[in-house]
Amino acid sequence: MSAIEGLIRELAKLPGVGRKTALRLTYHLLKRPPDDIRKLAAALTEVVERVRPCSRCGNPSESDPCGLCDNPRRDASLICVVEEASDIGAIEETGQYRGLYHVLGGSLSPLDGIGPEELNFRGLLGRLGNGAEVREVIVATDASVEGEATATYLHHLVADTGVRVTRLARGLPVGGHLEYADGVTIAEAFASRREIH
Amino acid sequence: MSAIEGLIRELAKLPGVGRKTALRLTYHLLKRPPDDIRKLAAALTEVVERVRPCSRCGNPSESDPCGLCDNPRRDASLICVVEEASDIGAIEETGQYRGLYHVLGGSLSPLDGIGPEELNFRGLLGRLGNGAEVREVIVATDASVEGEATATYLHHLVADTGVRVTRLARGLPVGGHLEYADGVTIAEAFASRREIH
Repeated sequence: MSAIEGLIRELAKLPGVGRKTALRLTYHLLKRPPDDIRKLAAALTEVVERVRPCSRCGNPSESDPCGLCDNPRRDASLICVVEEASDIGAIEETGQYRGLYHVLGGSLSPLDGIGPEELNFRGLLGRLGNGAEVREVIVATDASVEGEATATYLHHLVADTGVRVTRLARGLPVGGHLEYADGVTIAEAFASRREIH
Repeated sequence: MSAIEGLIRELAKLPGVGRKTALRLTYHLLKRPPDDIRKLAAALTEVVERVRPCSRCGNPSESDPCGLCDNPRRDASLICVVEEASDIGAIEETGQYRGLYHVLGGSLSPLDGIGPEELNFRGLLGRLGNGAEVREVIVATDASVEGEATATYLHHLVADTGVRVTRLARGLPVGGHLEYADGVTIAEAFASRREIH
């Protein structure tokens, strides 16, 4: 197999990248200065060598515990549970949440063979154990069937510890038009309607 | 800058990859076995170390001349001129063309500062020179304004050498619906209409 074919096949393994896109990317890279390709290869190697999941929250990081877990200015009484580490970035960008995180590594999906053992529930319970200062677990799983199932499972799991369990509100997305919202979202928005002050 | 941020920035330089996609790709890679990331890094390094443009046709290759130029079963009397090396793959996939290629490296676009000096016209003329067996140059530039300008320039350039210059037909794409074709394409299809046998 040629070097070009080898690169096309590796790129085609990326999500959302088919063979055609991999081909386009490869020829694009071939037109750039060799140092640009070397930089990309070096960035990949850096990540492999230096990044590991945080032993507390599961967020990939170069330090352990990660910068979020280790930050004394974060509110350690709140843990926001997310499916994927990439969800943390979306929440951090709002700048509104000051607590800690916990990465499950996916959502419950029995049909795909993903049961409770495949996700990091045990790590979460460990963080709620004896002497922990956690007051509230905020479940921020996706608003999908699997995300909802995971939220329900989490609720039952954490209920015994006496820690409060909440989940993110469902409703119309800000800036969204009512006529384009799906029926389930509208029904949820009705059920969770709030007083106007 | 962290290793993760470094990788996101390198990936975001790829065409069609914005910061959000780069972030998604990075977290996807972080979920895969480290060896998968190492393979991608190695494939990139392989390409940098081993691939160079063919000194005859400009097609990136691990050998010089490339496998196409060096293939005695290809018809050396035909040269198909393409804008980018990636166009060769699309033509080869048809399995219909058995001649050689010549990669210009782009199309004439004065507004972007790309004039004749920036493209590999000189190499093409060299291949048509004394004692060469080339009978026909097939211009397969894009059917865009820049591609057409490049084709016209090529025609004038090659005309003096006595070599025949042709270009790919314009018309309705096979499988395409007339009602969705643009006016210019329909007009070209009318002008180039052919007898039904």
